[in-house]
Order: sequence, then C-alpha cells, then structure tokens
Amino acid sequence: MKNNLTSQASKAGHESVRRHNLSLVLRTVRDEGEVTRARVASLVGLTRAAVSSLVEELLALDCLSESGKTSSGSAGRPGTVLKLSRTGPAGLGVEINIDYVSVCAVDLTGTDRVRVTEHTDHRNVPPAEVLAHAARLTNRVIASTREQELRVVGVELALPGLVSGGVVRQAPNLGWSRVAAEGIFGQALSTLRPAGRALAVGSDNEANLAALAELWFGGLGGVRTFLYLTGEIGVGGALVVNGEMLRGAHGFAGEIGHVVVDPEGPLCRCGAHGCLEQYAGRAALLRASGIDPAMGVRGIAELEQRAAAGEKRAVTALREAGDRLGVVLAGAVNLFDPEAVVLGGIYRSLMPWLEGPADAQLTARVVSGRWHENGSRLRASSLSGDAARGAAARVVHDVLGNPAAFAVR
Amino acid sequence: MKNNLTSQASKAGHESVRRHNLSLVLRTVRDEGEVTRARVASLVGLTRAAVSSLVEELLALDCLSESGKTSSGSAGRPGTVLKLSRTGPAGLGVEINIDYVSVCAVDLTGTDRVRVTEHTDHRNVPPAEVLAHAARLTNRVIASTREQELRVVGVELALPGLVSGGVVRQAPNLGWSRVAAEGIFGQALSTLRPAGRALAVGSDNEANLAALAELWFGGLGGVRTFLYLTGEIGVGGALVVNGEMLRGAHGFAGEIGHVVVDPEGPLCRCGAHGCLEQYAGRAALLRASGIDPAMGVRGIAELEQRAAAGEKRAVTALREAGDRLGVVLAGAVNLFDPEAVVLGGIYRSLMPWLEGPADAQLTARVVSGRWHENGSRLRASSLSGDAARGAAARVVHDVLGNPAAFAVR
Repeated sequence: MKNNLTSQASKAGHESVRRHNLSLVLRTVRDEGEVTRARVASLVGLTRAAVSSLVEELLALDCLSESGKTSSGSAGRPGTVLKLSRTGPAGLGVEINIDYVSVCAVDLTGTDRVRVTEHTDHRNVPPAEVLAHAARLTNRVIASTREQELRVVGVELALPGLVSGGVVRQAPNLGWSRVAAEGIFGQALSTLRPAGRALAVGSDNEANLAALAELWFGGLGGVRTFLYLTGEIGVGGALVVNGEMLRGAHGFAGEIGHVVVDPEGPLCRCGAHGCLEQYAGRAALLRASGIDPAMGVRGIAELEQRAAAGEKRAVTALREAGDRLGVVLAGAVNLFDPEAVVLGGIYRSLMPWLEGPADAQLTARVVSGRWHENGSRLRASSLSGDAARGAAARVVHDVLGNPAAFAVR
Repeated sequence: MKNNLTSQASKAGHESVRRHNLSLVLRTVRDEGEVTRARVASLVGLTRAAVSSLVEELLALDCLSESGKTSSGSAGRPGTVLKLSRTGPAGLGVEINIDYVSVCAVDLTGTDRVRVTEHTDHRNVPPAEVLAHAARLTNRVIASTREQELRVVGVELALPGLVSGGVVRQAPNLGWSRVAAEGIFGQALSTLRPAGRALAVGSDNEANLAALAELWFGGLGGVRTFLYLTGEIGVGGALVVNGEMLRGAHGFAGEIGHVVVDPEGPLCRCGAHGCLEQYAGRAALLRASGIDPAMGVRGIAELEQRAAAGEKRAVTALREAGDRLGVVLAGAVNLFDPEAVVLGGIYRSLMPWLEGPADAQLTARVVSGRWHENGSRLRASSLSGDAARGAAARVVHDVLGNPAAFAVR
C-alpha cells in the first residue's frame, strides 16, 4: 500500500516535472523568437535528448513549428530552427464595454489574428441580450480563426465592473448587478455550436486584463510594478506588483475611478459624490469641452481635434482633468510606490494635453519629490483597445504555462 | 568534477532541508504553546527520531525549553513537554519618533520583556545626537536583558519616514534627509560595548513594523490582507497582502499620510498642500480642539478626556478628522480591497469618536457598498506603542525562520 502510494506520488512528481519542462522549453522558444534545439538545451540546462523529446511533444501539440533544416536525417535534427506556431492553439478575448463589444483572437506569439468590434449602446439593454450578442460575435470570430488554421482553446470575458467567480457583482455604468456573465455567455455560445467542443470561459475586470496585456506584450521595458489606468466611460485601474496582479481580498482592487476628488462633487453612478470618474471619465471630459457626451468614442476624436487646434474650452477641460487625475494618481503613488503609471483607453490619445498638469501634481505631491528622483513618468499604454487583447492573451498565457492541458481531446 | 559538484549541491540541499525543518519544529512549538516531541512529529510529518534530533539542536540553541518529564531515561524522552524558551535569543526594537524614543526587548514568544521609553523632542536636534541617545538607551536595555538571561541577537530601528537600505531618505517631521541611520546607530552602539559582539542592525519604516507586530501578535484572527494606519505627529500607513508587506518598487509604499484631502488645503511638512496629516495628524487634531499641540502625547490624553466629557469643540474636531480619515480610507480601500483597516497610534484611544464618521464615509464611498457587505469594519490596533515591539518582533521572526543562524559564535 505504502509502495503503491509512493509510486503514485513519484508518477505525479514525474508528470509535474515534465509539465514544467514542456512549459520551460515553449517559453524559451517564445523568448528567443527562433532557436535550435541545441540552443534551447543549453539555455534551459537539460540534455539534448530530453529537449528533443519535449520538442516532439510540442510539435505534436501544434505549439511549435520548425523550418530551415540545415542538415537532414541526423539524430534530433539539430540544425532546424524552432519557433512558436502561427497555427494551432489560440486565445479568444471578448471585451463587453458600455458602448461596444470587441472580440479578438491571438495566437501563441500574442499577435492579434482576428478582431471584430461593434459599436452599440449597452445601457438599458438586458444583460442576457448583451451577452447573447457577444456570443454570436464570438462564434463568428471562431469561424474566422478556423480559416487561419487556429484552434481557439479558451475564451476570456473582459468586463467593466467588479468581477468575481464568473459573476459581475456590480458594473455601475452598464447598470449590471449580480449578473452570472460566464454562465450566461457560455450557455449562449454552446447553443450556437451544438457540434463544437465546449470551450472554457473565464472572466475578469477589463482594467486588469488591459494591464496584463501591457505587462506581457506592451512596451514597459522591464517595469514589473506599475499602476494602470484606463479611461472609458468609467475609469478603471489595476495594480501590478512584481509582475503579478494585486487582486485584493475579494478580487476588487484597483477601483481608482471611485477614489474621491472632492467629497462635495457631482454624484457618481456608484452612489457616492465627487469620484475621479466624474472629472476624468469620458462623459465628464466631453461635457466640460462642450461636446455631446452621447457622441461617445467619436466625441473623443472630436475633442482631440479641437485641442490640437488650440480651442480654449477643449484645452481647459483637458488641463483640469489632467490636474485632477494627477492629484488622485499622486495619492495612489504614495500608497503603492510603483515604478511607472500607465494610461490607457481614451487617455492614450489625449496624453499630450493631460500629461503636463498630471505630472505637475505628481511632482508636487509624491512624498519627497521621489516621483522625478526615481525617474518615474507617466506613460501612455502601448496598445489601444487593449482589454480584449489582454483577455485573449490570458488564455495564451495559460497555454504557455501548461501546453499539454490544451491538447485536442 | 561533476560528482564533486553534485555532492556539494546535495550537501547544500541537505543543509537547507535541515534549516527548514529546524524552523518548522520551532514554529510548531510556538503555535502549539506546549507540546510533546511525539505530537510535533505527527504535526510536521517527520519521524520521531528526526524530530528528536532537531529538538536537541533547538534546546542547545536555547530556543526551546522542556519541562514536566513524565517518564525518565527512555529514548527520546517522549513524555516531556516542549515550549519556547523564555531565556535565550531575544530581539530588540528601537523606535525613534518625533518626541520619544522607545526601546523594547521581546523573547521568542513575542512577549515584551524590557521596555524603556523616553519623551524628548527630536526636532531641531542633529540626527547623530538622536541616534547616539537611542544607542545609549539600547545599551541599557541590553544590560537588563542579560539579567533576565536573554541574549539580544539583533536590533531593528523603527523610523518615521522613508527608509531604504539603512538610510532615512526623508523624514519630514523629524527634519531628516538622507541620514545613514543604521550605520550611525551601529557605530555608536559598538563604541558603547567595546567587548561585546557586533550586533546586526536593521531598519524600517515605523508603520511597516507596527503592521507586522499586529499581523504576528495582534488580534486580527486570521486576517492576512489589511491596511494599517498609525497616527502620531505624522500619519503612517502600511499594506499587508496575504501576510506579506507590500513595499512597492522602492520600498516606500504605504504613505497614506500624504494622500490629499483638499488640493487647496494647509501646507504640509512634505511641501504639498492638504495632505491627510494636516487633518488627522496629532498636531492638527489638537489645534482643532483648542489644545496646545506642544503638549504632545499628554495633549491626546487631554483631548480624550474632553471628548469623554462631551466638550463640543473636542467632539467636533474628532468628528471632522474621522470624516476626512474616512474619505481617504475609502479611496485606499477602493484601490487595495483589504479585509480590514486597522487604526493604531493615537487613533487607538480616539477610536470611539473617529469610528462613526469614518465608517459612514467608507459605507458611502467604497464601491457597491461592499464595505459592509464584506463584513469589513474599522478595528483599533490591539497593541499600543507598537512600532518598537514590531521592530523587536522582526528580529524574533528571523530567529524563528532560521534559528541556527543565531547561535552563539
């Protein structure tokens, strides 16, 4: 009995080592771009025979492809070059926001391969309808990926609210409360694909996923501890510490949009007064600039044009929003001491006008002037429309961590 | 050569396993209070022989003591009861604050064994003089610990400012900037003990150490993710995530005293306007209550008396401070999503007046009412004058993690 247990334990141990090594080899190829088996062996510190066996499995899993054979027939084909497969496993991300749905498929390299975005106002639409629409879009994208020989292995939803255990606990700007988004979406999707494999569906807050996309695929150049802000109708935030998402005790950390600017300020959708969202969210910015908030994303393009033309009202509105943003960011930097603050969403294109006033507040308010002393600065996010990509990348990240788990069954 | 390396690696591995197991046994005894070798063996999953050998080493290191032998002479003395030694290794904490120095020695159980506090204003006193005074006090406490058969194995400084690599980068309320506190203090201490062993000296921010004391020895009952606030002349803060201090990219996280309440508010020592410290720090509270801020700690006792007597100005001052505290805490909770918020320092005794207004702001401002929904509430710190104890406990924590490293050389 004891021997039996030991042998089971040892078998489990062996499998866990092989799983680890498969992932190690796959991530090494990812990091190197193009690489020979021999080089992989020297980088990961395994024997060439072990690496060859792992590579064979990764080729069979369609995670790697090889090209440019420089010698033929020799053991282990040492001269061929390995790279991540551009076909095979893919991740699918679905961002459901206030006035658009964006679905995106990325391959193992993290490259966007298919993207469909539809602009449509989700306020006052029943959640089940919104999710069914997103499922239809998703099904179309899955069909497109098949044409590119990609195989979607999982779907991740990016949602603008407090998300926990597959449920949107609260999304004030959508008007959602306790919506079992994962379940409803998954049901709608499987109804559309009666013959298809059931796909694992996950979900997370949109700002968290956008921050992960920035971490994995953005231009942070080694920065691993940062505060990420995304401006949409709401203002979302995420905190990444040493490359890990800081989720908090209940999974709701990062809600910087509801940090107070002025306790007596305008009423926010969350029920409190004077939240940052009421000063630096999309509607507030457009209203202050004299642009109809109902114009949505097009309104932001209009604001950008007016500001670029030096229109006083637009420039003033952006300066004031930047100033308030800076006050709240300074508080967050004093609390978290990040290496960088990254602005995404609408802030990305508005950065030229927001940066100056926000940076002035950070310089004045971060304790002991360490904002500039530390070489910190505001950065624009390197990706646009990024939560969907982050969601898709989350799935790919899982594949890179345990490729055998995503084999065709 | 290869075999040689392997054998070195295996020796290192063996030593690391023994180090791990020594700590495991020691911490198990700590958790159990009083326990037999047999019970330790069953709890940690090692053989009785292995546990006996580890226990012998811990007895020799003076980390454990045994009592109540119930059988004599039998192998492994299975009937004797083990507990943490009340003599042997001790940690020493030195809190240097604006108007006091507090030195405290704790034994392995975390119990305060010696405490000396001197009230003296450190503003406008050269840092070297303050540190030399602290070293003299420390030397006296070390002498007292010897009388109790305790052996101080390390000293940790708790300092009210940004501390990194042994240097106080900035402590606005002390007026310190770039003071090499560890080095100056260590030098002063070794001059006082020419024949003594050199003691390792460490340092950290006072709020961080107070938060660790609360985590390790306080009454948090399983809470591992919390925000800790300590009110003194300054307002310090610390964030603990899953039992680990969140330090930030440069070690300066937690500076909640400099989160802004009103951008146009009073000038703070840090150079910015309207920081929380200017509303809820000790001087601000006393001033608003009509008590001379120069009264210091005695002023807080006076404030407490006046508020208890229902004096209107005192009650109003506390209500307003609680309100501002609540606004800033709500922002921090929205960002960080902790299980609890713990108030220490002067807030501990003022809790009856601060709690109501602060809690009202938290209830109104934490997104989606999840403050109460999550059963969160403000808690008073379970320890008073706690940064010195936290500092001493940090040393003890190191001993518990690797007892053999603290053997008498």
